[in-house]
Amino acid sequence: MRVLSGIQPSGPLHLGNYFGAIRQYLELQREAQVFYFVANYHALTSVRDADTLRSYTDDVVVTLLSLGIDPEHVTLFVQSDVPETTELAWLLTTVTPMGWLEKCVSYKDKIQQGLPSEHGLFAYPVLQAADILLYDADLVPVGQDQKQHLEITRDVAERFNNTYGETFKLPEPYILPQVAVVPGTDGRKMSKSYGNTIELFDDPKAITKKCKRLVTDSRPPEEPGDPSKLDEFPLFLLFRLVAPAEEWEAVKRQYLEGGLGYGPVKARLAELIIEHFAEARERRAELLAHPERVAEVKASGADRARKAARQVLDRARAACGVG
Amino acid sequence: MRVLSGIQPSGPLHLGNYFGAIRQYLELQREAQVFYFVANYHALTSVRDADTLRSYTDDVVVTLLSLGIDPEHVTLFVQSDVPETTELAWLLTTVTPMGWLEKCVSYKDKIQQGLPSEHGLFAYPVLQAADILLYDADLVPVGQDQKQHLEITRDVAERFNNTYGETFKLPEPYILPQVAVVPGTDGRKMSKSYGNTIELFDDPKAITKKCKRLVTDSRPPEEPGDPSKLDEFPLFLLFRLVAPAEEWEAVKRQYLEGGLGYGPVKARLAELIIEHFAEARERRAELLAHPERVAEVKASGADRARKAARQVLDRARAACGVG
Repeated sequence: MRVLSGIQPSGPLHLGNYFGAIRQYLELQREAQVFYFVANYHALTSVRDADTLRSYTDDVVVTLLSLGIDPEHVTLFVQSDVPETTELAWLLTTVTPMGWLEKCVSYKDKIQQGLPSEHGLFAYPVLQAADILLYDADLVPVGQDQKQHLEITRDVAERFNNTYGETFKLPEPYILPQVAVVPGTDGRKMSKSYGNTIELFDDPKAITKKCKRLVTDSRPPEEPGDPSKLDEFPLFLLFRLVAPAEEWEAVKRQYLEGGLGYGPVKARLAELIIEHFAEARERRAELLAHPERVAEVKASGADRARKAARQVLDRARAACGVG
Repeated sequence: MRVLSGIQPSGPLHLGNYFGAIRQYLELQREAQVFYFVANYHALTSVRDADTLRSYTDDVVVTLLSLGIDPEHVTLFVQSDVPETTELAWLLTTVTPMGWLEKCVSYKDKIQQGLPSEHGLFAYPVLQAADILLYDADLVPVGQDQKQHLEITRDVAERFNNTYGETFKLPEPYILPQVAVVPGTDGRKMSKSYGNTIELFDDPKAITKKCKRLVTDSRPPEEPGDPSKLDEFPLFLLFRLVAPAEEWEAVKRQYLEGGLGYGPVKARLAELIIEHFAEARERRAELLAHPERVAEVKASGADRARKAARQVLDRARAACGVG
């Protein structure tokens, strides 16, 4: 069973990336054949500086390795090391009705958020379809906001198959188990675009500072807490993700009974986050000191990915009569 | 000086292709560095059968060689042998505003002609920009209907250069000298989409039959002709293109004085067309009997084109930070 997923290099990875996706791949990597790529072609639609994009791209690779993605089990690669993607995207483009792209919610959303109306954003789902179909993926993990794109991928694949004969495997959506809702410091979903993230490998001081800023209320410590806030305050939601179960139970009890000040919990949360990623932080420092190891992982991942991609691309080229 | 041009493999080439473009490249090929490609990625937007597309693609290569395109002087290649084109197209896509593509007349025209509204047609000018920019072309010969696309190419190149620093050479439009207006059998511009073409290597009988069908009027032979028809009837316009000057003068005189029947001129026109391409027809038969020679030309053209393309693509990748 082949599972494929991509991650955009648009800045340092944060708790939302980790608990929302990466952690699940750490579990999945021994059971399935995982293809995991850094989507730098996609990131071009938002990152407009070469050095920044290169450093973000490498940072994602280093971060994934630090967190425990095992390149012996996972085909970890950078999207632009497989230019076959763009060729397949063109082949798919010629069978994609405009209407399918026009109806895409994510494009409309981005325009509404004030991003300039550019063709890269509009054509994004076709490149994504190429990303997926190029590896004969069986399963593609999707969040709610990506569901429509996977449907387009399936529709495009079917249209190509109907036009030119069976060529592509139709991927199924895969809802990751135990996906946590990871709130940002302001309580909304943790996301770079909201500026409410806590980065995994931020300076410990910065993590502590961000934890201090977590939105709570003005309840005095001695007063019993409101139970509904346990599922609402980012402080509690994040604490639960990183704390041992019994420590979380203790905090919960003290909060409900009265006598819990937010300050100490915030300070403890920061400690827990730092501890949780302490080993990864060491591995990261090690990798940063050995860029040749990272280069080797990228090269070997690219090599394996291209071999797989080449087969599907050749099939698609033959089917439509180019080359 | 590098000149680039492409031709779509959408069926056998006709007099319009020859007198409207190919003939000029035969003259140009020794003066300039000509890159000439068969645009099969583009043809995917209209040809939806693999065998047909493959045979059209090879037919264009064979036809160009038969007509005298010299692969020693011209880099003659098939577009899909240079997949770098599609990668550059993606890089360009991310800096192309939707508005530029939305305003494209050729897209709007095709939709009005009843072609389905597909993303391939819409994104076509971006792939064309990649075709051109990938070879650092100085000049791109354009007809009136392609002028807008070259403007978009220049605009996209400038936008990329402004975003990422000088990367692309800005190509200039090149109005081919002596471009004849080549009318089809019905008097409109000769074009596959009008079904009014006379193919270069059609069966002689078919050529004769098509010439017989050329639109004229019901003037009796003995009556003097209307001078304005000399520049209007496809019979006269085509005759002038293929006849020796003195023969054309004689026909003209006889028409104006009276005593010229259309029938004999039509028959003679057919003869002249067949004669004009007789040598090319022989070379064509020779090439069709030796597919390995055609394969060699394609391989060597692809090789030279890819080398040139690679340099520009690497520049573009470095500029925006992928790879």
